[in-house]
Amino acid sequence: MLGSTHGTLTTDSRRARVIACGEQPSPVVHGRPADVDDLDVSGRPLYADVPDLDRFFRPESVAVVGASDAEGRPNTGITRQLIAWAERVGARLHPVHPTRQSVFGIPCSPSLADLPEQIDLAVLLVGDPLPVIGELAEAKVKFAVAFASGFAETGAEGAAAQAHLAAAVRRAGLRLLGPNTNLNAFEKFRDDLDGPAIALITQSGHQGRPVFAMQELGVRLSHWAPTGNEADLETADFISYFSEQPEIGAIACYVEGLKDGRSFLLAADRAARRGVPVVAVKVGRTETGARTAASHTGKLTGADTVVDAAMRQYGVIRVDGLDELQDTAALLARARAPRAEGVVVYSISGGTGAHLADLATAAGLPLPHLSAPKQAELHQWIPEYLSVTNPVDNGGHPVGDWRGRKIIDAILADPEVGVLICPITGPFPPMSDKLAQDLVDAAEQTDKLVCVVWGSPVGTEAAYRETLLGSSKVATFRTFANCITAVRAYLDHHRFVAAYRSPFDEAPRTPSPSFRKTQALMRPGQQLSEHAAKQLLRAYGIRVPREQLVTSAAAAVRAASLVGYPVVMKASGAQIAHKTELGLVKIGLTSASQVRDAYRELTDIARYEGISLDGVLVCQMVERGVEMVVGVTHDQLFGPTVTVGLGGVLVEVLRDAAVRVPPFGEDQARGMLGELRGRALLEGVRGGPPVDVDALIEVVMRVQRMALELGDDIAELDINPLMVLPRGQGAVALDALVVCR
Amino acid sequence: MLGSTHGTLTTDSRRARVIACGEQPSPVVHGRPADVDDLDVSGRPLYADVPDLDRFFRPESVAVVGASDAEGRPNTGITRQLIAWAERVGARLHPVHPTRQSVFGIPCSPSLADLPEQIDLAVLLVGDPLPVIGELAEAKVKFAVAFASGFAETGAEGAAAQAHLAAAVRRAGLRLLGPNTNLNAFEKFRDDLDGPAIALITQSGHQGRPVFAMQELGVRLSHWAPTGNEADLETADFISYFSEQPEIGAIACYVEGLKDGRSFLLAADRAARRGVPVVAVKVGRTETGARTAASHTGKLTGADTVVDAAMRQYGVIRVDGLDELQDTAALLARARAPRAEGVVVYSISGGTGAHLADLATAAGLPLPHLSAPKQAELHQWIPEYLSVTNPVDNGGHPVGDWRGRKIIDAILADPEVGVLICPITGPFPPMSDKLAQDLVDAAEQTDKLVCVVWGSPVGTEAAYRETLLGSSKVATFRTFANCITAVRAYLDHHRFVAAYRSPFDEAPRTPSPSFRKTQALMRPGQQLSEHAAKQLLRAYGIRVPREQLVTSAAAAVRAASLVGYPVVMKASGAQIAHKTELGLVKIGLTSASQVRDAYRELTDIARYEGISLDGVLVCQMVERGVEMVVGVTHDQLFGPTVTVGLGGVLVEVLRDAAVRVPPFGEDQARGMLGELRGRALLEGVRGGPPVDVDALIEVVMRVQRMALELGDDIAELDINPLMVLPRGQGAVALDALVVCR
Repeated sequence: MLGSTHGTLTTDSRRARVIACGEQPSPVVHGRPADVDDLDVSGRPLYADVPDLDRFFRPESVAVVGASDAEGRPNTGITRQLIAWAERVGARLHPVHPTRQSVFGIPCSPSLADLPEQIDLAVLLVGDPLPVIGELAEAKVKFAVAFASGFAETGAEGAAAQAHLAAAVRRAGLRLLGPNTNLNAFEKFRDDLDGPAIALITQSGHQGRPVFAMQELGVRLSHWAPTGNEADLETADFISYFSEQPEIGAIACYVEGLKDGRSFLLAADRAARRGVPVVAVKVGRTETGARTAASHTGKLTGADTVVDAAMRQYGVIRVDGLDELQDTAALLARARAPRAEGVVVYSISGGTGAHLADLATAAGLPLPHLSAPKQAELHQWIPEYLSVTNPVDNGGHPVGDWRGRKIIDAILADPEVGVLICPITGPFPPMSDKLAQDLVDAAEQTDKLVCVVWGSPVGTEAAYRETLLGSSKVATFRTFANCITAVRAYLDHHRFVAAYRSPFDEAPRTPSPSFRKTQALMRPGQQLSEHAAKQLLRAYGIRVPREQLVTSAAAAVRAASLVGYPVVMKASGAQIAHKTELGLVKIGLTSASQVRDAYRELTDIARYEGISLDGVLVCQMVERGVEMVVGVTHDQLFGPTVTVGLGGVLVEVLRDAAVRVPPFGEDQARGMLGELRGRALLEGVRGGPPVDVDALIEVVMRVQRMALELGDDIAELDINPLMVLPRGQGAVALDALVVCR
Repeated sequence: MLGSTHGTLTTDSRRARVIACGEQPSPVVHGRPADVDDLDVSGRPLYADVPDLDRFFRPESVAVVGASDAEGRPNTGITRQLIAWAERVGARLHPVHPTRQSVFGIPCSPSLADLPEQIDLAVLLVGDPLPVIGELAEAKVKFAVAFASGFAETGAEGAAAQAHLAAAVRRAGLRLLGPNTNLNAFEKFRDDLDGPAIALITQSGHQGRPVFAMQELGVRLSHWAPTGNEADLETADFISYFSEQPEIGAIACYVEGLKDGRSFLLAADRAARRGVPVVAVKVGRTETGARTAASHTGKLTGADTVVDAAMRQYGVIRVDGLDELQDTAALLARARAPRAEGVVVYSISGGTGAHLADLATAAGLPLPHLSAPKQAELHQWIPEYLSVTNPVDNGGHPVGDWRGRKIIDAILADPEVGVLICPITGPFPPMSDKLAQDLVDAAEQTDKLVCVVWGSPVGTEAAYRETLLGSSKVATFRTFANCITAVRAYLDHHRFVAAYRSPFDEAPRTPSPSFRKTQALMRPGQQLSEHAAKQLLRAYGIRVPREQLVTSAAAAVRAASLVGYPVVMKASGAQIAHKTELGLVKIGLTSASQVRDAYRELTDIARYEGISLDGVLVCQMVERGVEMVVGVTHDQLFGPTVTVGLGGVLVEVLRDAAVRVPPFGEDQARGMLGELRGRALLEGVRGGPPVDVDALIEVVMRVQRMALELGDDIAELDINPLMVLPRGQGAVALDALVVCR
């Protein structure tokens, strides 16, 4: 986003308010306000400006640097397209070329300095855009697009060149799209389509093409941002900007790598606050995808489970295929918020209804049984022997006459019903043409969602091409799967938005008192001893067993009677791992003599194994509960993340864990537990009592605080196990591993 | 299938051999040979005839009972279609009507007895087909189709009527399709398409329509069997028949409920032996689907995980959507067996290649790196800075000229490559038209599989409609997902077929000596005591701990010294469940006095809880291993099934288990372990030794034998836990639960 010194306005109300109060806006680090209030305790921004891209997408004056009309030059074709586009959007276009008098009959300026007017957008067709940036700054050009490739996508050398370019752009105070981008932003968009539009953001032009082609199926598209290498403007900037445009109903993204984790989350947060759905394909499910994606755009691909979690935290709808991206974005852009959550499947074939209902239920869509009075109403028009419980099977014939519309209206009138899905698996014109028209007519008159699956693989039928695609009120799909994915995303999105509270509003900005207590414990580059790690936890209010670190057998006996029998004894030292396997843990010691023997044995083993100890821990025995793991891991893209898993064999063998990116609220902590496959353990097994879930969540939130305050100083933090006791009895960290960075 | 007395030939070689040897074929229970040799030890058939349906699909003479040409009658339209169809297939059609002289100008017979010739196929348009069946038998009609509805799909009364109809058909010795079916078998199939065909079997006409419509996209379809309520002919009969037809490349099924588990498996076995792929949508993933499906066709829907396992055992490819059914069946029908397993993704956009490669790898497709020489070869035509490792990114331009075809041929010439997938995400005619043509040309000249994903949602482009769909050698898809699903099914199918050995060839036919030993132990309707259950296991060669059942403290002490200290003691009785929770298990007893105390305590608790004991078990302590569960459960459709799971909390909380339908070989038992999410436990955890997997598999196979021999007498059998010891040390059933039926 631009600093205010360059005269662009920010559309964000909060910053506008600051300016309105007569204060100077704070000096900006490029793209981020630098005042301390706008950073969380980890030093990451809590706020991002919305770049004002109005003049980028709708410039009044455009310069084309490197314009050409010479036969056979690639720039000639591009220049021709830009001229056509400028005409469409009503912009004045100025070719820039050192030697030509004119290009395609338009007078040429020899340099940017010689242009006849202030330029909104400069399109750089030159092989190396870097030398031009200074001139752009001189000419106070607001926006530039760089087509040139050969930057970060080609390797280390290209990445260095891109870093130079980015620095020059920052100094120049303009905003740059690219390099390694293309003409997609300047395509011809259809302006004859109605309804809210999709805005498209892609890191690969080819991959955006099918969403663009949705216009041919009647779906409106308003913008396309092909972000290329994102030396300056990134996906997040466009998400923010598009979230503020009233004509945009949904944002569709194709992402290969994210430039910065926090800026993406802040943009997604803005979209969530505004209720604008963001649907994204994010490459990198596998190593192969991540590797290739990195080589393609030269950007960091975050560990996929973290990306997945981060997207879910902010309601970004992640899909796998471009077809799902099209269908989901189109539905979300055009459909109003649901009036009710119930989904009814209505079909002219019992088999079709059963099949769709089966898949929809498996995907988690709620298919309520229709009430007895509603069923009776439907049976006025549908033979008694057919089931109208939901799915509603009309047996075919009623759609051929006046009853068809009655049935649809009766279903839509049910207050429990928010979505009607009608699969038309095979076209049979005497029935399906009328059915399609009835569905369109009903959709035009209801505020509920009407979906149709046109199951024919042919797709040239008039009922499909003309009737269904001719209406922006009916959501038309080609497969059950895509319809179900989109409807689920639709219900999820509106539920998410209704409950959304931005975690950035409540994120801590200043260190807690705990933070200060921990500074003396940190040992950069080292693993802390168990005792030190537990002191760190204790500083953050996480319960650990009563314990004492002792360095003699006699002290151990004294400690045991203070801690209280029975006790556990463990060797403690900075570099110990796998204590249990090495025999460095003794449990259930009930007498002074056992404690003395244990002390001797532990120190003997350590001596034999060559392990240096800072002492032996004498710890309280904690009764049985459910063993969990809670930890902090550093993600390259998002920074410190918090993980919760089921302990012991479950986390080791099944990797049954959930992750979140801070900051997050208690609802997300609770959501993590809900994601665990073994979550039933928390409710008690074999008649055992349920565990203290509240205490577990409190530990997660305290660990989050540690992640925020210490995250960049900690390489790893693991509480393993955290013994979660029966409800009301709390949770105790029995062991902890902390590795400082 | 027809008994030989009715003159139809069986196409199966084995039975043909029997007949050729001059023996009379054995009397048939309807659809099953009844000779003992053809039954496994559970009494289920090991063999099914293939019905000869040639005359059903290509009759020479057809009678239409209830034919009509009266304006406005539903039968009039049907009669008209049948006349057109009979003309196409060259059959003589005879209307049957008690009063009319002629129908559509064709002379009418008043009854079946009055027909002028022997009839191959009678189409019954009458409301109640039952009274006609006797007449059909008199007239020696071979096949009949009953359109009437109102049978099992409507409830109990209809089911009874259907049972009467089925019995009448059985007595009549003819084969009936329906009731509640339709004209689909008599549709107009395109005869101008080349390549192997799809044969279609559906339980709902509407649901078959999209596969039928594939003909409009150039995919050949040879047959459609709309099985309706399957009073007689069932899905399995058509699978068997289609497996024997040389022009059929794949069988596509839409199944709501299976009529009989074993007959389905025998048909799938036949297809697997013949290498004919069977692709199936099977409704019933959820309760909703199962419930609706049952109401639709009135058939039993088996527990879905068992259906899923059974299909996998016989290589049936289960898909969810009709679009997947179309795309997968079309690919499998037309593609030759793979020359190699390697899949290469080739694209004109790095983003597209990365995206598809990511999804393909996530789905388990093998994407090998191309060799250095191959990469060098490709770089003759593709700029150096683009990656050609796999995915191969050509950057676009080379496809526009002679290089395009060179690249495709070079990839296909790689001996590691069996499949080339080229996603064309957006059409750009100067490039994509040429690319499509090159792909078609290359596909026509290779024996490797060439797949194209045409990503445009529009689908009216000439390159798609004419070039790609015009070739039966290129497999064309509309989405990445369906391409990946189909290619995976293709590789899986050919791998499966190559390794397939029919379990029916090796299934036991006579009871083992173990079986006789167990007869005295069975207690119909009752739960056996732990001691009796273990005797049952021991009879089948499954190891149990040394143990004695005692009824006095003194006997317990004697037993303990025989068994060897330390011992475990447990209360034993017919109706005990949850022994551990009730305190009815004492472990780690090391002395006579502990044994005496334990005996007293166990009998006290049992007395207090009102539990009657048959004694107290004194058992050997078994050292630690991995706890598993192995059991037998009765499935309504398939009979006894065998389950293996991880024991303890894993099976209780995560239900981490795999199931198989007997008979199955050791490979399947090993496959079960591979399906367990916690399978890593078997390989040793935290440096522990790997467990004795061979012993575990032997137990599974012995339990399978119990399932086959005792399955119908056992409601439940559970070995829980089976302690699997370190490799070479075996596996011991520590506890067992057996409930007799």
